[in-house]
Amino acid sequence: MSITVAPTFSFTLLATDARTGARAGLVRTPHGDVPTPVYMPVGTQATVKTLTPDELKDVGVHIILANTYHLSLRPGAERVARFGGLHRFMGWDKPILTDSGGFQIFSLGHLRKVDEDGVTFRSHVDGSPQRFTPERVVALEEAIGADIIMPLDECLPYGVDERTASVSLDRTHRWAARCQAARTRPDQALFGIVQGGMYPALRRRSATTLAGLDLPGYAIGGLSIGESKAEMHAMLEEVTPLLPAHKPRYLMGVGAPEDLFEGVARGVDMFDVVLPTRLARNGALFTPDGRLNIRNSRFADVEDPIMPGCHCYTCARFSLGYLHHLFRVEELLGYRLATLHNVTFMLDLAGAIRAAVLDGSFIECHERFLAGYHAPDAGVREEQRRRWLEAQARKAASV
Amino acid sequence: MSITVAPTFSFTLLATDARTGARAGLVRTPHGDVPTPVYMPVGTQATVKTLTPDELKDVGVHIILANTYHLSLRPGAERVARFGGLHRFMGWDKPILTDSGGFQIFSLGHLRKVDEDGVTFRSHVDGSPQRFTPERVVALEEAIGADIIMPLDECLPYGVDERTASVSLDRTHRWAARCQAARTRPDQALFGIVQGGMYPALRRRSATTLAGLDLPGYAIGGLSIGESKAEMHAMLEEVTPLLPAHKPRYLMGVGAPEDLFEGVARGVDMFDVVLPTRLARNGALFTPDGRLNIRNSRFADVEDPIMPGCHCYTCARFSLGYLHHLFRVEELLGYRLATLHNVTFMLDLAGAIRAAVLDGSFIECHERFLAGYHAPDAGVREEQRRRWLEAQARKAASV
Repeated sequence: MSITVAPTFSFTLLATDARTGARAGLVRTPHGDVPTPVYMPVGTQATVKTLTPDELKDVGVHIILANTYHLSLRPGAERVARFGGLHRFMGWDKPILTDSGGFQIFSLGHLRKVDEDGVTFRSHVDGSPQRFTPERVVALEEAIGADIIMPLDECLPYGVDERTASVSLDRTHRWAARCQAARTRPDQALFGIVQGGMYPALRRRSATTLAGLDLPGYAIGGLSIGESKAEMHAMLEEVTPLLPAHKPRYLMGVGAPEDLFEGVARGVDMFDVVLPTRLARNGALFTPDGRLNIRNSRFADVEDPIMPGCHCYTCARFSLGYLHHLFRVEELLGYRLATLHNVTFMLDLAGAIRAAVLDGSFIECHERFLAGYHAPDAGVREEQRRRWLEAQARKAASV
Repeated sequence: MSITVAPTFSFTLLATDARTGARAGLVRTPHGDVPTPVYMPVGTQATVKTLTPDELKDVGVHIILANTYHLSLRPGAERVARFGGLHRFMGWDKPILTDSGGFQIFSLGHLRKVDEDGVTFRSHVDGSPQRFTPERVVALEEAIGADIIMPLDECLPYGVDERTASVSLDRTHRWAARCQAARTRPDQALFGIVQGGMYPALRRRSATTLAGLDLPGYAIGGLSIGESKAEMHAMLEEVTPLLPAHKPRYLMGVGAPEDLFEGVARGVDMFDVVLPTRLARNGALFTPDGRLNIRNSRFADVEDPIMPGCHCYTCARFSLGYLHHLFRVEELLGYRLATLHNVTFMLDLAGAIRAAVLDGSFIECHERFLAGYHAPDAGVREEQRRRWLEAQARKAASV
């Protein structure tokens, strides 16, 4: 028996912007409500790096991500189940979304082999052989017990030819249907994942095919993998009009402050991205003016907080000078305080966007943001991404 | 003009055990009271590693240490002063004690040269030449602004001959007097530091000489540097009877759970030690039975907390299985939660010892503790110490 919509999951569309595709809504899950647009911090290994569940709650986090691939290796999905599921295991009683791990398997350069039935690859931890099929991924996600679960999908690298992308896409669609059929827990909502590379026709085919499965929500995957912002926006514009309006839309792995606006303007409701937490540990802190690098010596003597008016603990209690010192001497407290600030910044930004959509001022909100914020240019972003991919490749090569 | 006792500093002896040297008292400082016996967490670089000031307060920390040598290099004592002193810089409004850094200078293997006037050495950060004299150390400590400050002293390695120890000791005494004379801030209390290696006659000479300076408190330094526990206890027994009873006594760098009892029994009031926080980051957690190693796979499926009944956040919220997972995947949250627990354990232990001294049951309290607690044997301790000293030597050699 296939269960398409979990009875305890729903999405209510509260407002649609008259001038853009922006929407405000409310996702209901068995572990609580998620107002959208929403930023979802990433807790890959059952922890949003450096923070406690109570700190996440205190700054207003509604929902977090975890990763099925990582958790299935350590501590093991069955072990999480024995602890009563991921919520109990990690002490977080609000909603959780688990990614399937498709992105990790396909992007981290491990030896892998795809066939119609699934994908064979090696663990990045110990090199052991692993096998993911759509059915196994659903079983793992049911053991982990998140509120929203994602199907196994094939994530192709940027630049793949259209023929390859098309063959892969059809398989990803068959996998989605198999995931849907494999489900046994009515309390979890399985989303679809739209793929199709940078090919408008494939993206449209993916959106309409998956819409036909009547899943409770839809993700857009395979973006922010090396393409330009313009390409990403073009793909979003192909996809969101074809997705059902009364289902939430989730843009996977995207969500720098400037991207939140661009995604919302094109009808996206949910965003997950490691950027705010990863940048924080590197000392890059969000402000309404753009990012600042706390390691810069110009902050050594500054008594002001990162961002006057910010309600996070870091800004309430500590100066830029103290944070600069913590980063300079590589104290773990610095990574914590920086993470707390960046997560707060993203939550507040998503909250401001939602309020603007609700009162019809989304465009003005976006313009105010753009007037102040200096986003890093494409070169800086590309350099960061390149360095990160290299580090991942080194990790993978060391297995 | 020399100021021997800061007007805002006092020590009240509340109880003395009838059967041992154990005492309970209250130290008053400009930033609040410190009930003794007390465990003082170490915040070398203006942060108790991984924890916020509010977490320290929540678990009941009364006073923390910081290090003049480290802070003078980064961020610089003058910079701390511009921020209004260390309390404001790090957001901690309770008492602080600064060690002079003598121990670091003399023990970390840097190139150093001692003369009558002071010590020349190289920074472990950048190899830059540095010069500490008694007067400079006091000036640095006055800029940093702790409530209790320590004089520059010479820390000799274990095994030094008596003649060398004697010459050094006299210079350390002259330096203490020079520190006393150099003070200009009446709100700071300068303690003396008893040295003398493992030579009873030198230890006695040091105690009586420094007692003659009528300082507001006395530390015992140069212990736990490689000698046996029996030697350390013997040295304490030489020294504490010669120190004025109405002044607090501080045993520097000593304070494993079992050492707390041994020190208190010999008349010590204050303890600082990095052990609880350093062990925590290595995954060694204190319990009434002894240390457990959270990395051990036997904890992977355990739903119990580290220590039932412990009031720390870690024990209230997380299982041994989850902590094991965090350490296995090297998540920073694990180091935080472990540190919080070990600090709480030490504070509660010191609190229990104090209560027992006050109600006349110190020996029974000690016996109950010993009946449950399995201290690591001397071999394990020695191995840990050796590895740590090697790591320090490597760091020093890399300058």
